[in-house]
Amino acid sequence: MLTYDVSKTQGESLYLYIYDCIRRDIESGKLTADTPLPSKRSFAANLGVSNITVENAYAQLMAEGFIYSKPRKGFYVTPLSELPESPSSLQNDSLANRFKAAGALRKKSNPEQKTRVDYLSPLALFYQKNKRQDENEIVYDLTGRSSLPDSFPFSIWAKLMRENLSMKQADLLMPSPVGGVYEIRAAIANYLQDFRDMEVAPEQVIIGAGTEYLYGLIIQLLGMDKSYGLENPGYAKIKKIYESFNAACSLVEMDNCGIDMDSLEASGVQVLHTSPTHHFPLGIVTPMKRRHDLINWVAAENDRYIIEDDYDSELRLSGKPVPSLRSIDSTGRVIYMNTFTKSLASTIRISYMILPDGLLDRFNKKMSFYSCTVPSFEQYTLADFLGRGYFEKHLNRMRTRYKKVKAALLSEIKNNPQLSQGIISNADGGLHFLFHVESVLDDEYIVRKAKKLGILMAPLSRYYLDDEDKNKSSKGTFIISYSSIKEEQVAEVVRLLEETLFG
Amino acid sequence: MLTYDVSKTQGESLYLYIYDCIRRDIESGKLTADTPLPSKRSFAANLGVSNITVENAYAQLMAEGFIYSKPRKGFYVTPLSELPESPSSLQNDSLANRFKAAGALRKKSNPEQKTRVDYLSPLALFYQKNKRQDENEIVYDLTGRSSLPDSFPFSIWAKLMRENLSMKQADLLMPSPVGGVYEIRAAIANYLQDFRDMEVAPEQVIIGAGTEYLYGLIIQLLGMDKSYGLENPGYAKIKKIYESFNAACSLVEMDNCGIDMDSLEASGVQVLHTSPTHHFPLGIVTPMKRRHDLINWVAAENDRYIIEDDYDSELRLSGKPVPSLRSIDSTGRVIYMNTFTKSLASTIRISYMILPDGLLDRFNKKMSFYSCTVPSFEQYTLADFLGRGYFEKHLNRMRTRYKKVKAALLSEIKNNPQLSQGIISNADGGLHFLFHVESVLDDEYIVRKAKKLGILMAPLSRYYLDDEDKNKSSKGTFIISYSSIKEEQVAEVVRLLEETLFG
Repeated sequence: MLTYDVSKTQGESLYLYIYDCIRRDIESGKLTADTPLPSKRSFAANLGVSNITVENAYAQLMAEGFIYSKPRKGFYVTPLSELPESPSSLQNDSLANRFKAAGALRKKSNPEQKTRVDYLSPLALFYQKNKRQDENEIVYDLTGRSSLPDSFPFSIWAKLMRENLSMKQADLLMPSPVGGVYEIRAAIANYLQDFRDMEVAPEQVIIGAGTEYLYGLIIQLLGMDKSYGLENPGYAKIKKIYESFNAACSLVEMDNCGIDMDSLEASGVQVLHTSPTHHFPLGIVTPMKRRHDLINWVAAENDRYIIEDDYDSELRLSGKPVPSLRSIDSTGRVIYMNTFTKSLASTIRISYMILPDGLLDRFNKKMSFYSCTVPSFEQYTLADFLGRGYFEKHLNRMRTRYKKVKAALLSEIKNNPQLSQGIISNADGGLHFLFHVESVLDDEYIVRKAKKLGILMAPLSRYYLDDEDKNKSSKGTFIISYSSIKEEQVAEVVRLLEETLFG
Repeated sequence: MLTYDVSKTQGESLYLYIYDCIRRDIESGKLTADTPLPSKRSFAANLGVSNITVENAYAQLMAEGFIYSKPRKGFYVTPLSELPESPSSLQNDSLANRFKAAGALRKKSNPEQKTRVDYLSPLALFYQKNKRQDENEIVYDLTGRSSLPDSFPFSIWAKLMRENLSMKQADLLMPSPVGGVYEIRAAIANYLQDFRDMEVAPEQVIIGAGTEYLYGLIIQLLGMDKSYGLENPGYAKIKKIYESFNAACSLVEMDNCGIDMDSLEASGVQVLHTSPTHHFPLGIVTPMKRRHDLINWVAAENDRYIIEDDYDSELRLSGKPVPSLRSIDSTGRVIYMNTFTKSLASTIRISYMILPDGLLDRFNKKMSFYSCTVPSFEQYTLADFLGRGYFEKHLNRMRTRYKKVKAALLSEIKNNPQLSQGIISNADGGLHFLFHVESVLDDEYIVRKAKKLGILMAPLSRYYLDDEDKNKSSKGTFIISYSSIKEEQVAEVVRLLEETLFG
């Protein structure tokens, strides 16, 4: 396979470096006419770069005519005689000039296309086409990162948005305080009171453009000099955020009930970031006893805090609901967080936190200079969506749907002679469970095999944030998220899982 | 006037403290039936707290029946005989319980109100009413913080939003990379190419929920250990953001051409945050010579960067356009920033930055774990708005409007016997100019007087971020932003300015 030394890039973008290497080999005749180029994925793996880097390099070569593509086949080297006489600006030039030149070439070849929406460079068009292709390649996503288009209430949302755009024009243009407009904060307070039995005042509700953004606000509020404790296993992303703020963080181990209290004490952290309602990826629902242990921990020192990340409590499908830490807290040092990215759509970017009374004045004093990061259009629309009962209906519809998919999945696995040898665990909480199989194969090999068959899934081992030993103890365990699977697809998904694991 | 010692609050919220003090005085009979309470503003000034704190305290007392209001008069003490028998939960209790109890009381007294949208506590209803009142009190806003409802293209926006909600459902639910979806980034790159003569590739465009959020990303990217230089005078908010990230910042002085190069060299900063296209509040448009000085400064050391904040370049009403620093930069260490909050609406929360090629890889490596903070709904809508030429039309309409308002303002001031003695300066750039008058009165006194007459404005002195000496040299200079004034209001605004300054 084609190989280039990518460590040789000098400040320039990696994709331009690869582009240059291939281009030079084509122009010099080293790569001859109609030679097939390696597939994007294998080439990326070979070079040790991301798929998107190779994609970008190929896109640029395509845009400039050095390679061509055959549908469902791949990319081929353009014969020397047909090579474009490229404008000098395309050689050894910046990204920006290439974009401009590509746009100009296209304009020239299609002078009749005058509407601005069509004025996109070949690179952009290639991107768009490519996005479609990738969608088709992955048929079933078991990572929980995407949601099904029919899971979002588009028509209600459009109706509420339209009403606001015509009825609330003055309100929509008025800057909102950092925590959001009163309407959305009161709607969330009412919702938590009615459906989560939490007593919250609107003033305590702070909304923001996603949970990640709110983590940043909390770090700024509590201070970067605090030491933060993160669950292990857990989301690598959360660790990256703390590190991006230069905040010290330590990993805290989990046992069968959630946070391991010995590990927590030993870590010496001041702020614990935890998801007792439903841990990801282990799926643990922390029992009451352990919740009280956590509250005792936070009560023991005045500078201790808990960030309770309740990201998918709305989607609990079975088992008794457990009170949040915030509900049983008497210290005033539990910050509750939740999000609409799981329950509604990840792309509307609205999350919220509930500040305890004790932190409210400090927040208002220290952070009120910030503008709210959620557009007021979305704030009023979501306030109506909650206040008029649409959210409740939406959740009921989603829960019914997910319950059916889950039941079908568990039953199909049970009835499958091979898969029924595996062990399903922690299926009580939100929208995933763990599936463990004995296998000599490497976790990442299995995941790659699944991908080839059209299934995107992740091994548990990927979520251990520290050393290799921990990885080994979780070997052979996979996370099965079923939020983007339809009931009628379950049989096929299980068949593909069988082929992946035992085929 | 009523006076309480607000330094005595013990951890509780300031407004609840004030609420408790007043309530105790009412219940003890110290404040007798039908006694008028001080106006919110004078009471707040007297206690040294913000208006909103007093508002909240009054709102809570109203909600619980301890005080009542007369339209256009104010608040009065409820006679003892009519005092509510308050539920015990309202005494010595948390914000949350008060909200709950107030909601329950209201539900009880209006059992027929069953729709959820009406289920708001008296506190919430009071807030809503109050918001309306405040709007009416301030008739003319010369601070540039709000925009006129008819300045936003609601019908086009609603049309594009509706189209996307029905045509792009799958795309809308697909997570976008941290920099935004390709469509909006390409649309911005095309726009900058066509209208600002800047050569930019879509990959270099990073969008985010407001400029403040992007500052935070830049600080995380360049590092909190860098020293940052801020313009003085300038926005206090920018300084607060850097400080909130624990980044060292120094103030750099301005001369008639913009950044004072001696002050910049003396400051020893590594990253300069500047707005050469149109400084706020001084209104300076930095000439080419000084721009080259700035590029020479950044070129002199490898770890120097410039953050070029081009926040209102679209709204230049007169004078020749000047190339951006980014356009004349050869070092690859100028980060260009711009926003749609000035040119479209502050509440849609979309800003963008253009990373130089040299920072792109670092950004993608270090920051790509973040999700984009702009909802995909807004991203696609704005992409269409730009790509189909609506933004261009909108800007033309706004420029025409603002030009007329500006001309009318300047002419009215010139024809006013008193105001024509003042000096107008730096009216060439975006939507404000400076107005200087000789006055023995204190700047803040003048601003308070203006507010009573219905005009909200700010003195230049408020934007000096360091010592008092600088304040003195700018005494008597006021910022006149005319973006939320209609042409037919100009005569009245000028009359009120006259009354404020010479009445």
